[in-house]
Amino acid sequence: MKVDHIISNAYVLTMEGNGVGMIENGAVAIKGNLIEAVGQTDEILKDFKAERYIDGKGKAVLPGLIDAHIHTGMAIFRGVAQDMNNWMQKGLWPFMKHLTVEESVKGSMLNIVEGIKAGTTTFGDYDSNMPKIIENYVKIGARARVAELVNEIPDDIGDLPVGELYPFFPEIGERKLKNNLELLDRWHEAENGRITAILGPHGPDMMSLELLNEFKHLAEKYDTKLHMHVAQGDREIDQMVKRYGKRSIAFLDDHGFLNGRLLAVHLTEATDSETRLVASKGSSMIYCAGSIGIIDGLVPPLLTFIESGGQGALGSDQAPGNNCNNMFNEMKFAAILTKVKKSNPTVFPATLALRLATIEAAKVIGLEHQIGSLTKGKKADIIMINLQEANLSPVFSTPIRNIVPNLVYSARGHEVEMSIIDGKIIMEDRILQTVDESQVIREAQQVADAISVRAKDDILSAESDILDMMRNNYL
Amino acid sequence: MKVDHIISNAYVLTMEGNGVGMIENGAVAIKGNLIEAVGQTDEILKDFKAERYIDGKGKAVLPGLIDAHIHTGMAIFRGVAQDMNNWMQKGLWPFMKHLTVEESVKGSMLNIVEGIKAGTTTFGDYDSNMPKIIENYVKIGARARVAELVNEIPDDIGDLPVGELYPFFPEIGERKLKNNLELLDRWHEAENGRITAILGPHGPDMMSLELLNEFKHLAEKYDTKLHMHVAQGDREIDQMVKRYGKRSIAFLDDHGFLNGRLLAVHLTEATDSETRLVASKGSSMIYCAGSIGIIDGLVPPLLTFIESGGQGALGSDQAPGNNCNNMFNEMKFAAILTKVKKSNPTVFPATLALRLATIEAAKVIGLEHQIGSLTKGKKADIIMINLQEANLSPVFSTPIRNIVPNLVYSARGHEVEMSIIDGKIIMEDRILQTVDESQVIREAQQVADAISVRAKDDILSAESDILDMMRNNYL
Repeated sequence: MKVDHIISNAYVLTMEGNGVGMIENGAVAIKGNLIEAVGQTDEILKDFKAERYIDGKGKAVLPGLIDAHIHTGMAIFRGVAQDMNNWMQKGLWPFMKHLTVEESVKGSMLNIVEGIKAGTTTFGDYDSNMPKIIENYVKIGARARVAELVNEIPDDIGDLPVGELYPFFPEIGERKLKNNLELLDRWHEAENGRITAILGPHGPDMMSLELLNEFKHLAEKYDTKLHMHVAQGDREIDQMVKRYGKRSIAFLDDHGFLNGRLLAVHLTEATDSETRLVASKGSSMIYCAGSIGIIDGLVPPLLTFIESGGQGALGSDQAPGNNCNNMFNEMKFAAILTKVKKSNPTVFPATLALRLATIEAAKVIGLEHQIGSLTKGKKADIIMINLQEANLSPVFSTPIRNIVPNLVYSARGHEVEMSIIDGKIIMEDRILQTVDESQVIREAQQVADAISVRAKDDILSAESDILDMMRNNYL
Repeated sequence: MKVDHIISNAYVLTMEGNGVGMIENGAVAIKGNLIEAVGQTDEILKDFKAERYIDGKGKAVLPGLIDAHIHTGMAIFRGVAQDMNNWMQKGLWPFMKHLTVEESVKGSMLNIVEGIKAGTTTFGDYDSNMPKIIENYVKIGARARVAELVNEIPDDIGDLPVGELYPFFPEIGERKLKNNLELLDRWHEAENGRITAILGPHGPDMMSLELLNEFKHLAEKYDTKLHMHVAQGDREIDQMVKRYGKRSIAFLDDHGFLNGRLLAVHLTEATDSETRLVASKGSSMIYCAGSIGIIDGLVPPLLTFIESGGQGALGSDQAPGNNCNNMFNEMKFAAILTKVKKSNPTVFPATLALRLATIEAAKVIGLEHQIGSLTKGKKADIIMINLQEANLSPVFSTPIRNIVPNLVYSARGHEVEMSIIDGKIIMEDRILQTVDESQVIREAQQVADAISVRAKDDILSAESDILDMMRNNYL
C-alpha cells in the first residue's frame, strides 16, 4: 500500500497502553492526515511504500504534545510581571489596559511559534478575541481546541481596589458569549477538523449565576465541555465567599457543574476534600506547574486529584506569569514540584508526566479518539526528537531504558527537530514551514515598543515591586 | 588602542554592583585573555580598534555561567536512576561498579560539552580520577576549578547493606589524596591560569577524622578551599550519629572546619539553626536545586543561608540524578522551588538566581577577582545570548525591562550563541570550535553500549523500582 510518509528506525513512544508503549526500531506510516500504521520498521517497510521516507535513527518519535491550558493573547507581556505581589493588578494590568486586539493577536502568534518549536502540536487556547486569534492557528497549521474567555466584568477591573466585589455587566457577558458561540458555530470542526471549539466561562467569580447557568445549558445543547478556572486563587475564593457565602467548589457542586463536562483549571486553592470531590464527579483538572509556582509559590493538588481517580493534564498558562510556554518545562516542573510537595522522589515518575502531556491530556480535552497516542486511525500529530544531542546522550536501551526520564528531566524543547500536524510537516530541521519565524518575532517586538510608550505613565504610577527592582538596577 | 575583539550594540549585563549592572547598547573590548573595557558602544568604538567586531544587536552579553558543583565523571549514566528509592545503591551502583576510568573520562567530555552549549564557562568539577578528567578541560578550553573526590571507602561500598557503618581503608584515602595533591602541584594555575585546583574531601562520613584533619592542614598549607558534601542526606547523618554520636555540622564545628575555606555542598538535612551556624562561620553553600529535587524531593535551605549572611552558589551535580547539567535549569529551579518552599513568589527574584550563577558563585569558589562579572582586568569569560528567539521575545526596555526574568524563567540554554573563555571563542553560532561534538556523543554512546552488556546481571539482580518500570512498559 502507498502512503505519504514513513518515519522509520526510531524509538517510537506510542503512548498506547498504561505506559509509554515503546517500540524500539519502530516506524510510523502516515497517509493524508491520518496514521496508517505503527509497528516494527521491517514490517512497516514490507507493507508500505511511501512518497517520502524520513530516517528516525537516533531519534524519538512520539505524539505531539498537548498544552491543555494556554492564554496566547497575553504572550506579548512575557517577563513583565514576576517575583512580585499583586501580579495581576500591579504587574500585568498597567500593560494590559493598553493592549489592542490586533496587538494581542500578534503576540499570540509568537506564543504559538514558541510552542511548536518545543513540541506542542495541540493548543488548548482560552483567551479573549478568539475569533481573531484563531486565524493564527489556521495560518500556522497547528491543532487548536479553543474557547473564548467569557466574563461579565469590565476591562478596567484591574483598577478596582483589591478585595472589592466585582461588578457584573450583562452586556459584556453577552458580547463575549457571542464570540464563544461564533467559535462553536463557525469554527468547530473547521480546517479539516483541526480546529475545534468548546465553551470558556472565565471562572465562577467572574459572572452572575444566570450566565453560569446559561453556560451549563449551552454545554448540553452543543454536547461540549466547559474550560474554566476553578479555585485559581485566594482572590477568587474571597469573591465567592463574599458574594455567595460559599467557596468555589461547593458553589459549583450546588449548581450542578461538577460533572464530566468541566475542565477545572488550577484548583490552586482546593482543599484535599474539595479536590477529591471534583475528581469523584468526573470533572478533569489542568495543572499549570510553572505558572502557579512563579505567580503564587504554590503547588496545586494534581497528585491527590489523580489518586482520587481524576483525569489530569498539564498546561503552560500565560507568558507574563510563567514566562515560557513549553511543555517540557511543564512536565519537569509538574514532576519535581509534586515530589517536593510530598517530600518523596517516587510519587511522580517521568512516565506520568509524559502521559499528562499526551494521551491523558487528550482525554481531558475530549480528543482522545483523535490524538494523544500513535495508533492506526488517529490524526498524524507527531514530533521527532533528536536523542543525539549532548543533553539527551547516551541512550541506554537494555536492560533498562533512559529515554523517557531524559525527555522529561533533560530535554529543553530545542531537541524537537520535526513537527507533523494533521499529516503536514509544520516544522522541519527546526525551521517552520508555514510562517516566517523572524517576521513573527519582529512584529511582536514592534508591538512591545509601541505599548511601552503608551503604557509608560500607568506603569510608573503602579508603584509595583518591579519598579523598585528597576530603580535598584536589578532588571 | 588595538584589541582583539569588540562585542557591541548589546544588552550588557555586567553583574557589577548589587544588581545586574545593565548597560543598554553596551560593548565589551577583549584583549588577549582579559577584558580591556566595558561601556557604552559609542565610547568603546571611539577608544578601541579591534581585530574582529562582533555584532551584539538583539543579544544579551553576560559573564559565563559558573557551575559550582558538578561530577562530570558520572555523566555517562544520565537518566538511569530517578523516580526511585535507594537512588545510589539500587539505581546507580549496579552501573557504576562497571565503569572504567577511560569510560568515565569520555562521559565527562559529554557533560562539559552539554554545559558549554548551555552557557557554562567555569566548572567546579569534583570527581574521581580528576588528573585524567582534567585533560578534557585542557582540550576543550573551558575554565575548571577542580577537586579530587577523596574518601577512604572501597569502590564496592554500594554492596554494603543500607544502614551499616562504612569501613575505612587508609590506603584508599592515600591513593585518592595523592590524586588531589597531583592536581594542586601539577595543575593549579596551569593553562594560562584557566585550570585551578582545590581540595575535595568527599564528606565527613566518608573518611576517618585523621584524614579529615589532614585536609584541614593541607587547606592551610596550600591556602585553598575544601569542596565537601555536608549534610547531603539522611544516609550521611545516620553514619555520623552512629560513628561519632553527632550530626555532621556539630561535628565539623567541633573540629574546626566551619570557616571561610569550606564550600558546604547541599546542606539538604541541615536544620535552620545548623544552616545559620554554617553561614555565620563564613563557610559557603552550594545549592543543587534540580538534583536534590529529583533524587530526594527536598529543597535545601539556601534562602535561610543567604538571609543569615552566607555566600551561596548553584550547581548542577550529576547527570544520573539531575539528568541535565544546565545552569538555566538550576537558576529556574532554585528560584521556583524556594518560592514554593516559602509559599511566597517574592522571596527569590530572578536577579538573585542570575547572581548565584555568576558573581556570587565566583566569590564562593574564590575566583571573584578573575571571573563572575564583566569589568576591566577580569578574564574574558563571556557568553552571548540571542534574545530574538521566540521564547525570549519581545524585549521590553523601558520603563521596565524584562530581560533578566526571561533569561532565568524562559531561557533553556540553546539561546546561547557564543561562548568566549579566557579570551578564546570556544563556541560560535552554537558550534564548538575545539572539539568535534558529534564524535564526543558517538564515543559516549559506545561506552554506554559496552557497559549495558557488562552490567546487565547486576542491573537485573538489583530489583530496583526502575526494573519494575521497565517490566510495566513505563520506560
